[in-house]
Formats: sequence, C-alpha cells, structure tokens
Amino acid sequence: MNKAFIHDDFLLQTKAARKLYHEYARDLPIIDYHCHLDPKQIAEDIKWENLTQLSLDGDHYKWRAMRANGVEEKYISGNSSDWEKFRHWAHTLPFTLRNPLYHWTQLELKRFFGINTLLNENSAKEIFDKTAALLQNDEYSAKNMLIKSKVEVLCTTDDPTDTLEHHQAIRDHMTELKVLPGWRPDKLMSVEDPEQFNQYLNKLEEVSDTEVNSVKNLMEAVNKRHDYFSEMGCRLSDHGIEEFYAEDYTETEIEKIFINVRSGNQLAENDIRKFKSFMLFEFALMDHEKGWVQQYHFGAIRNNNSRMFQQLGPDSGFDSMGDHKLAVSLSAFMNRLDKTNQLTKTIIYTINPKDNDTIATMAGNFQDGTFPGKIQFGPAWWFLDQKQGMEAQMNALSNHGLLSRFVGMLTDSRSFLSFSRHEYFRRILCNMLGDDLEKGLIPDDIEMIGEMVQNICYYNARNYFKFSL
Amino acid sequence: MNKAFIHDDFLLQTKAARKLYHEYARDLPIIDYHCHLDPKQIAEDIKWENLTQLSLDGDHYKWRAMRANGVEEKYISGNSSDWEKFRHWAHTLPFTLRNPLYHWTQLELKRFFGINTLLNENSAKEIFDKTAALLQNDEYSAKNMLIKSKVEVLCTTDDPTDTLEHHQAIRDHMTELKVLPGWRPDKLMSVEDPEQFNQYLNKLEEVSDTEVNSVKNLMEAVNKRHDYFSEMGCRLSDHGIEEFYAEDYTETEIEKIFINVRSGNQLAENDIRKFKSFMLFEFALMDHEKGWVQQYHFGAIRNNNSRMFQQLGPDSGFDSMGDHKLAVSLSAFMNRLDKTNQLTKTIIYTINPKDNDTIATMAGNFQDGTFPGKIQFGPAWWFLDQKQGMEAQMNALSNHGLLSRFVGMLTDSRSFLSFSRHEYFRRILCNMLGDDLEKGLIPDDIEMIGEMVQNICYYNARNYFKFSL
Amino acid sequence: MNKAFIHDDFLLQTKAARKLYHEYARDLPIIDYHCHLDPKQIAEDIKWENLTQLSLDGDHYKWRAMRANGVEEKYISGNSSDWEKFRHWAHTLPFTLRNPLYHWTQLELKRFFGINTLLNENSAKEIFDKTAALLQNDEYSAKNMLIKSKVEVLCTTDDPTDTLEHHQAIRDHMTELKVLPGWRPDKLMSVEDPEQFNQYLNKLEEVSDTEVNSVKNLMEAVNKRHDYFSEMGCRLSDHGIEEFYAEDYTETEIEKIFINVRSGNQLAENDIRKFKSFMLFEFALMDHEKGWVQQYHFGAIRNNNSRMFQQLGPDSGFDSMGDHKLAVSLSAFMNRLDKTNQLTKTIIYTINPKDNDTIATMAGNFQDGTFPGKIQFGPAWWFLDQKQGMEAQMNALSNHGLLSRFVGMLTDSRSFLSFSRHEYFRRILCNMLGDDLEKGLIPDDIEMIGEMVQNICYYNARNYFKFSL
Repeated sequence: MNKAFIHDDFLLQTKAARKLYHEYARDLPIIDYHCHLDPKQIAEDIKWENLTQLSLDGDHYKWRAMRANGVEEKYISGNSSDWEKFRHWAHTLPFTLRNPLYHWTQLELKRFFGINTLLNENSAKEIFDKTAALLQNDEYSAKNMLIKSKVEVLCTTDDPTDTLEHHQAIRDHMTELKVLPGWRPDKLMSVEDPEQFNQYLNKLEEVSDTEVNSVKNLMEAVNKRHDYFSEMGCRLSDHGIEEFYAEDYTETEIEKIFINVRSGNQLAENDIRKFKSFMLFEFALMDHEKGWVQQYHFGAIRNNNSRMFQQLGPDSGFDSMGDHKLAVSLSAFMNRLDKTNQLTKTIIYTINPKDNDTIATMAGNFQDGTFPGKIQFGPAWWFLDQKQGMEAQMNALSNHGLLSRFVGMLTDSRSFLSFSRHEYFRRILCNMLGDDLEKGLIPDDIEMIGEMVQNICYYNARNYFKFSL
Repeated sequence: MNKAFIHDDFLLQTKAARKLYHEYARDLPIIDYHCHLDPKQIAEDIKWENLTQLSLDGDHYKWRAMRANGVEEKYISGNSSDWEKFRHWAHTLPFTLRNPLYHWTQLELKRFFGINTLLNENSAKEIFDKTAALLQNDEYSAKNMLIKSKVEVLCTTDDPTDTLEHHQAIRDHMTELKVLPGWRPDKLMSVEDPEQFNQYLNKLEEVSDTEVNSVKNLMEAVNKRHDYFSEMGCRLSDHGIEEFYAEDYTETEIEKIFINVRSGNQLAENDIRKFKSFMLFEFALMDHEKGWVQQYHFGAIRNNNSRMFQQLGPDSGFDSMGDHKLAVSLSAFMNRLDKTNQLTKTIIYTINPKDNDTIATMAGNFQDGTFPGKIQFGPAWWFLDQKQGMEAQMNALSNHGLLSRFVGMLTDSRSFLSFSRHEYFRRILCNMLGDDLEKGLIPDDIEMIGEMVQNICYYNARNYFKFSL
Repeated sequence: MNKAFIHDDFLLQTKAARKLYHEYARDLPIIDYHCHLDPKQIAEDIKWENLTQLSLDGDHYKWRAMRANGVEEKYISGNSSDWEKFRHWAHTLPFTLRNPLYHWTQLELKRFFGINTLLNENSAKEIFDKTAALLQNDEYSAKNMLIKSKVEVLCTTDDPTDTLEHHQAIRDHMTELKVLPGWRPDKLMSVEDPEQFNQYLNKLEEVSDTEVNSVKNLMEAVNKRHDYFSEMGCRLSDHGIEEFYAEDYTETEIEKIFINVRSGNQLAENDIRKFKSFMLFEFALMDHEKGWVQQYHFGAIRNNNSRMFQQLGPDSGFDSMGDHKLAVSLSAFMNRLDKTNQLTKTIIYTINPKDNDTIATMAGNFQDGTFPGKIQFGPAWWFLDQKQGMEAQMNALSNHGLLSRFVGMLTDSRSFLSFSRHEYFRRILCNMLGDDLEKGLIPDDIEMIGEMVQNICYYNARNYFKFSL
C-alpha cells in the first residue's frame, strides 16, 4: 500500500464528492447537539495516560467487538493493565473490517495523532507508546481536544437532579466554545422499580428544595429543575424510551398511581404505562413552553444479559434493537400535543432501521409551517451510526421529507476522540450527493449542492436549536 | 449547466438502459389502471388557468413539502392567490432535492410545456406566466392532455353510489381512449361512525332503489351497483384498508351487528372487525364472480393530525405509514377465498417497504397456475412512488416471484400532469435492467430483455385486466 | 452473445473481486453444515434418469415459479411425464430473470454438465437429452457428485426417531467425505395435534426402548436418542420455529400439560406455548452439555394454502415469510440459558430480512468471549438465498458484528446439484469485498482480505463445528 488508508479523499468516490467535501463541508465548525461527554472532565481539563483510558474504557461498541472476537472479559472490563487491554483490542481490530469500528479507529488515529499505520497486534505496542507520549502534551487535554476539533457548541446529557456545577465552571473559564446541559429525565419515568424511583425522588426533593408527595409538588420540583437547566443554557431535552407511551389517563388516576408508588408499592403493568404516558406528555409541555427542542431515542431494549448486568451494570454492551410497533402510538403522542398547538420542535431517532420510513413519513403529519424542518427524523443512531445506516436514514428522509432541512450529525459519544465522526458523516453526505450529481439525479450545480451540504453540516442546526451564541 | 436537467437519457446510466428505454419502452401507450382523476373534468373537457389549479391545488405531496419547509398554511390550502401559492411552491422546490417531487415537477414542466428551466423562486414568475399562456390553448384541455400522454385506458376510483354519469358522457363522446370506473366500496365498511354510515346507506338505498334494513337487502343493493359498474366497463375493485380483516364470524352475528349499527348504535371494536371482515370477503366473492381484478391498498394510517383534520378534512397531507402486522391475516383472508376456488386476480400494495418481502412471498402461496402472475405484488405506492421505492418493490418481486409477469405502473394521481410518472417508471425499470445486463446478471440479449420491458410497461396489464378494447 | 452467461468471472465486477475469488475462494473444500439431502440416496449411491428426477421433483422453489407463470399443476406435481414437466420448467425459466432460479439453474447446467446454452422452451429437448445421457455415467452417482463438488463434510437433517442406518452405511463405505446426522426434533414440540404427537411418541418409545408416559421418561427417551446421534457424529441441532417460545412455566405445569396431551386431549393455546417453551429450553441444555451447535430457523409461516395442503401435503411450495416480533422473546430465551452459563454455540436464521439488524445486534448481547463468533447470525436462508439477500445479511452482520468470524454458507437443499450455491455465495462475497477494496473502504491488502475470504468460506466453519475430521 502506497497510499494511507485514511487519505484526503477517503470515502469520496466522485470528483463532485471531493469538491463538495473539501470546498464546502470540511472546514465548518461542529455543533454537537447530543453527546455523553462528562462535563467534569471538561471542567477539570483532564488529560489521559494512554489510548485505553481515552477511548477503550467504557466504550461498549469496542467491548462488544472484543467479546464477539473471543476475548476474555478480564481484558475488556476487568482488572488487566491498560496495555493488556489495548493489546487485545488491537488484536480484535482487523476482525472488525466492514464494521464502523474499523473506520472510526483509523480515523481517530489519523486525525488526533497523525498515525497512518493500521492498528493490529503487530503495530499495537508502537501505537500505544507513541500515543501515550503525545497524550502528555497539553494539546491533548480535554478542552484542547474540543478546540482542536472545532467544536462550537456541545450539549451533554444530564439528569434533572444534577447540580450542573461543572457546566458552571466551564462557563466561567472557557470562552472558545459553549458546553450546555441537556435535560434527560428518564429516571422520573422509571416507576417499574419503586425503591430506585423513591430514592431518586428523595434526591429530587433535596436538590429542588421541594417536598415530593403528590403529583402537584412532583411537577413543581421538576419544573424548578427545568427552569434551572434553562438558566444554564439548556435548550433541549432527550428521552430514551422503549415505546412511545400514549395511554389515556385522568389526573385522579395519575395521583393514585403516584401515591401508590411513592409508598413503595409495585405498580401494575397498566399503571406503569399510564404514569409513563403522563410524564412523557408533561415533559413535552414544559419543553414547548420554553421553546426547547425535544429528542426521543426510540426502541432500544437494554440489559438483555442478566448475568453480565449483575457483574457490570448498565451501558456495558448488552443492549440491542427492539422491534416494537410505533406508528399508532407515536401518532397519538404527537397529536395529543399538536391538538392544543403545544408540540415543540421534535427530533425522533430510531434504533431499528425497519422504522426509518415509518418515522420519516410520520414527521410530515406534524410539520405545521412554523419552522422549516420543525419535526426532524433524527440522524442514524447507535448501531446505525455507520455508512449504510447513515445513507439509509438520509435516503428515507430524502424520499419522504426534506433532506435540505436536516439538522445533521451528532456524536452521541462518551469519547473525546469521536468528533471525527462528524468528518465521517460529512464525507458520507458529500459522497452521496456527489454520486447523485454525477448520475444526473440532482442538478449539476455545485454551488447549490454545496450550500445544501453546508446547511446540513452546520447552519441548519445553528438555526434550529437557537443556542445563544 | 450546458445540458438540460431532464434530457433524453435522464436516469439511464448505461448504454443498455438507453437502448431499452428508447427502443422498447418509450413509445408504448399507457394503461393507467388506477388513478384518482375526476371523470367530471374529463367529461367537461375542462381547461386550467394556471399551474396552481392544474397541479398544486389538492396535491398533498406538495402540501406536505411546503409545510415541512416552513410555509404558512394560507399559502398552501388557504385563500391566497394562485400566484402567491405558486410562488411559495417554487420557493420550496429546491429544498426537495432527492425527494421525488423534484423529478416529477421538472419532468412535468419539460414534457407538457417544454420548459428546461429549473423552478425556483427566481424563475417562478416566468414559468407561471408562460404555462398560464400555454394552458389557454385547446391542446391543454383535459381530454387532449390524456391523448397527448398516449393514455389508452384509464381507470378512475369511484364510490358504489356514484351515478357514473360522467363516465357515460365520456363513453358517448370520446373514442380516443377508454375511461372506465373503478369500484371502491370503502364506505360500506366504515361502520365505526354509525351516523356517516347510515347516511351513506340512505344514499345507497336511493341510488339502488332498494330498501337497506338487513344484511340480505344490503347485499342486494350492493350487487345491483356492482352489476351497474360492470355494465359501465368496470373491471376492477380497489380497497383502502388499514389491516387485512379476516376475523371469524357467523351470518347471525353479522345480521345482529348490522341491525345494531343501522339503528345508529356505536359498535364494539370486535364487532367492527367482524363486520369489516364480512364485507371484505363478500366484495371479493363478487369480484371473483365477475372475473374482475381486486386491489388492496394496505397499511396507511390516516388523519393523524386532528387539528388539521378539523380544518381541512381528509386527504390533505396528514396520512402516513402504519406498521401493522399482515402476514397471518393476509394469509387467512386469501386462503378463505382460495379454499372454494373463489380467489380472483389480486393486486396487493403496501405503503410500508418493510412489508415488501412478506407480500412478495405471500403472493406465491396463492399462484395457482390459472393465469401468469395471477397474484400481483402491486407497484410502489404513494410514499414509495419514487426511484428507490420502485427499485425496492421490483427487487423484492424479482427475488421472490416473476418480475416478467408484473403488470407495471399506475399514477394513483389526481393530476393530469402525472402521466409523466409512467415515463419515470419506465426509465427506472430500463436503468435497472440495463445495469443488470452490463454486469452480466442477466443475459446480454437485448431483444429478450426488451420484450420483458415491453411486457411490464404495457402488454402484461393489457392481458391481465382484459378491458374490452 | 460471444461470452457464455456463466463465465469465469460471473458476478465478479472488479479486479480485486476476481483475484479474491480465483486465488483464495474457488478451490476450497465445502463444509455443508445444514442440508436436506436424503442419506438413503447417498448410502445407495443412486443415479437419476433425467433432470426432472434430479432437480425438479420436490423442488418447491421451481414449483412456485411455475405456478406463478401460469403452468397447470399436472405439469408440476402431477402425473405428467418427466419430459413434459421439464418442458414446462424450461418454458418458465426465462420468466425467472432476476430471480435466483435463473442463476442457480444456469450455474448447475454449467458446472455439472458443461452446458452454456440458456435453457428455454427451444433448447429444452436438447438439454434434457444431453443431461439424461450424461446422468447414466457413474460420475453422476450421488456419491460422485458430492466428491466432484469437493464436499468435505455434509450434515443432513434428521428426526430423533431416525435409525441413522444410512449414515452408518455411508460411514462404513465412504472415506472421501463425512456425512453426519443433524438433530431436528421439531415433532417433539408439535403438541398442537395430539393425535400426530402421540403417534410420534409411540415411535419414540419403540426406537428408544423407553416407555413415555411422563415428562421424566419422555426426556430419558429423548436423551437416549441425543446420545445416539452424538455417537453417530452429530454435532448440531436444528429447530424450525415460527416464534421463539420463552414463556414461564413450572415443572408441575409441564407435567400436567404433558399428561393431558399424552391422553389425547387438545391443549389450550397457552399450554401449547408453555410446552414448546419447555422443550426448546431442554433441547438447548442437551446441546450445551454435549458442546453441540444449535441452529434456529425462525419465522416461516407454513401451509398457507389449505386447498393445496390437502392435495400435496407440506413442503410443496405454500410457505412464506411471517412478520412476528422476535426481539423480546429471543432475548428472554437466550438469557435464560446464559444465566446459568448453559448457552451453547448458536446460529440464528431469519426468513424475513426486516429482522436482519435486530438479530445481528441481539447476537452481540450473548457473545461471551469463550469462542470467536460464538453467537452467529446465520446466512441468508430460503427466500433470502439470493444475491441481494446474502448481501443484506452480510451487511447487517458487518455493521453490527464481525463478518470475519462468519461461518459462511450452506445449501439447505434437497438437490445434489445445489452445491454450486457455495460457488454462488463465494462469488458474491468476493465481489462485495472486492468492491469495498477498490473503493478504499477496506485496506488495499489482498492477502489480508484473502485470508478473511478463506475463513468465511471454509476455515471458520471447520473451527466452529469441531467435526472430528
């Protein structure tokens, strides 16, 4: 191989694609409107000793690949040394060919460390040592990696009970970019486990300085936190839901259900669904009132492996795609809000590509002319965050809606290296449009298409979220 | 751009594709076996003042795009002037890139008006005026547009209570093509709204001169209309269904349910399903007896947006894809008919591409050797009526059945301009086969493939529907 | 046409694809780990008189195509002569363009008979006669066709009550390859038909020399057979299931249900599900204990056409894709086994491509690092055994797991000609990877990719199944 695997024209198959990427997309800043970076690490501007700490620890994508490759758990989530873990990851990487991990990994090595070598068992030591040395430099601190990545806005994912002290600290000491909180109130819906739910409410009482023993003061407490998040610059909510809960309920029922669970009792299945329907609806009203964007991440089934859940807890690589129905309930949920004109800007993500077309057409039912692309079919999420997944999402959006109004990509990641996924997305977008252009499927007008690219990569998100920049 | 966007070889990527299209497909007449054109407009041979009247009023595809683009409702379905509406549509069009609307619109401008200019806000006035001027000419009358489009047969979509007077008038005064009625008895199944249902039955009583107060005379009345449609040249039925209703029921039950709803009572959910199952089955028996083709359009969920439904009523752009299961019920429905050998030729359309493979394989269970392609997987419908949707439908049909026996495309449209969608389909078909041919996936025998193209574009439909030509 | 349709580079579109196929894939032996060949035919080393006997009788793929093409049943499954049947098949073949039957048929004619002529009504007689003459030669005996196809291991599909006498006979007299039994205990779950079930249990009593009147001695009898299959070299089980049964049950319940059905009573729906859940789980424990691989073929709905079922029985071409949900039940089923670390190597096949991504991600939840690719997303099955189906399966596997660890293709066929489907698969695999390579999606390292190809085509299966070779 004479040419580096990650070269200037990586993924860009046509002349038009190359022009679109290099002249329109490449240099735009990044608005990462949904990620799972830890604000504490940014506030403290931490550094990492090696690649294991930076990009292997806690990365459940890589953990899954290693398990599938026959690597023992001790080299994955266990007590082995950072080097041993990295070595096993390096051993696994060549077996991930055609999986996005291969592209992501080589792209990160190239962009952040200038490394062209393909990572495998043979090159592991050299790469581990070289990156470890580089990571000692200040330019590899948390903040500097964000700056280097041209991040302009970054939205984290935060619990309503979070003090947001780290966001405050960042706001006080960092002018190069905005790090804003994201409102993720999933735990306020988790009534299936009364013990955990009540512990959580106790915490909410404390942080909101509000007694929580009725639906009324529950919502008072929640609203206080919502207000606080808003003051701290939050402009969006996010909800991880297995289904769109849209059951009918009355205030009296909800009060009764709440008192029941607040007393520590296990709820009936139907009551759980009613309560979730209530909360999801109330959250949406709050977001509408403040003009926030609401996001729904639909369809994951989590913690499928009880043995490993006992051992490692959630988010350790044992989640997968559900195949629930969603058309009727999603319609009912959105319609209930739209009836009184209280449906705020909304982004719907699906974990299962079989729902792509369903969601893309459903969005159209609630576009009301108040804002271009008000209801968004969210970018390819989680397992779908790969070339074919992105193409499928953009094709469905194109066929059933307006790709031009798409707010584009996000990282949804826990790793500071993953901003290169915006590059990955931009290349794939430009390649798709370049291919269309060369086939005559769209007009041969590079400026027109270039502007479309710039909007999808940056300007649409800027206009849509209305962060105070 | 030197070359027109819609040029001779639009969508035709290979030499073989170009040969197939220009030498085999292009000049064939059109059998549009399912559309929503208004027979009154044809009978009266109306003309239009401008493009808004001709192709924007009532076009819910375009309305959805405009809403998604942030256009106010007054410029869509409201009281604004034709020019103002067109201007907002023109503003929206460039944002529809990659959506079929872009291709459809430019193709219509080219074929009917010889316009190569890309429609956008800047070119809107010129195009609006130029087309308005042309539309004054007689060659743009309803009839002449059909003739110019080489339409040989056109089947409309008509309610059983329709007098078909316009079809009669057309038959009396038009020799260039056949305009035949299509039997669409959805309202006879709509027992969920007793008031509307009874009003409808009153109308049926009148037009059939039959009292309708029992299942027996209900079916007498329906049969009279079916006979009348047949006399008027109707050869096919069409059913828009959310699900394939195939519940068990007894005559006694149905009688009881009918009396109940005829008395104005709201039916229980289960009774609604039973009644729909009964009617759907009876319709199928009637079609079999007459040797008609029956069509099922499966899976749309309609009127998702109650606020806009109040304002605009049905068919105004608030419908989308459902995700109901269909394999078991479709099997039960067809099997019940096949058991007594009363399953007539059948076309099944799905609105959701996730069902493509399921339907394509289901069709195979009821092919009985009596007619080639007796059970058809219907062409890409509604949201799927675009390049990728058509390719996906034809791929599923190819992989699980016989593409060669496919009866091909229809417009399913309310617009006289949409006959260019047959051209669109033919180009896509030829491109797909041309690509196969150049890759060696099918034999390099242009005559053989050309014949296949001609069959799919025209001859299969002619043989299948057996219109008296 | 100057070039034969099936030429050396059939399906291989790039230089890299051609290199991968010819230098790495082509000459590898075949491990056909799941097929439906009749061991009796191998043991007796039978020969066939003509192509109808060899490849048309009982081939429900071809039967379906003929029915769809309007061929009368007497020429398909009826009493017509072999020649008449072949003639009608030959008439149908050109209409199967784009269906895998076209490729399969021409590939079989080329590989086994050296025939380049395209089969159609005109060439039918010549081809029928020529192949009939060749089939008289010993090289076309059952055994010699296996040897010629480079089959190294072949696993049949056998009922637990089967004596395996033919397997024994083959073992005694054939050294060139292994023909091993496969454990397919579907009938032990078929409690929905008490009469058939009890007849089956009587047979089981006999062959296992064990009275079967309680769950305890039922399982004793089953275990005896499982042991016997193991002695005979069986290393895998196979289960054809409409759903993943994973209901809760108690021992007492199962005992009661069993006694009930053993007494000839019809079971309630819920009891049927409980019993199936029990058996499926018990089978899995047995397989785990012996270190076998378990296979699940999920989702077909069978015998949709009652009229033809009466006439022809099962497996005559009236099965199709179901659209059942599977994520939650599959998760529950696998988790129940994994909890106690009793989940053996598992291959999950789906008949409906809408489940591809769901299954590919589910597999990842139960990869436990004990063996590379322990949980396999099985190769494209039945209706999906075609170019696009295989590509879709391999794409889902690539995106969500490790294609490198894939155990590759099988025939799942009743025909001795179908080993050419391994060639078909290998060409498609090499074409896919060659395309990736030329687009720079995988490293331009032909040796690395070549090794991957070899693993998928042969070595992975050899390592995974651990047949004693």
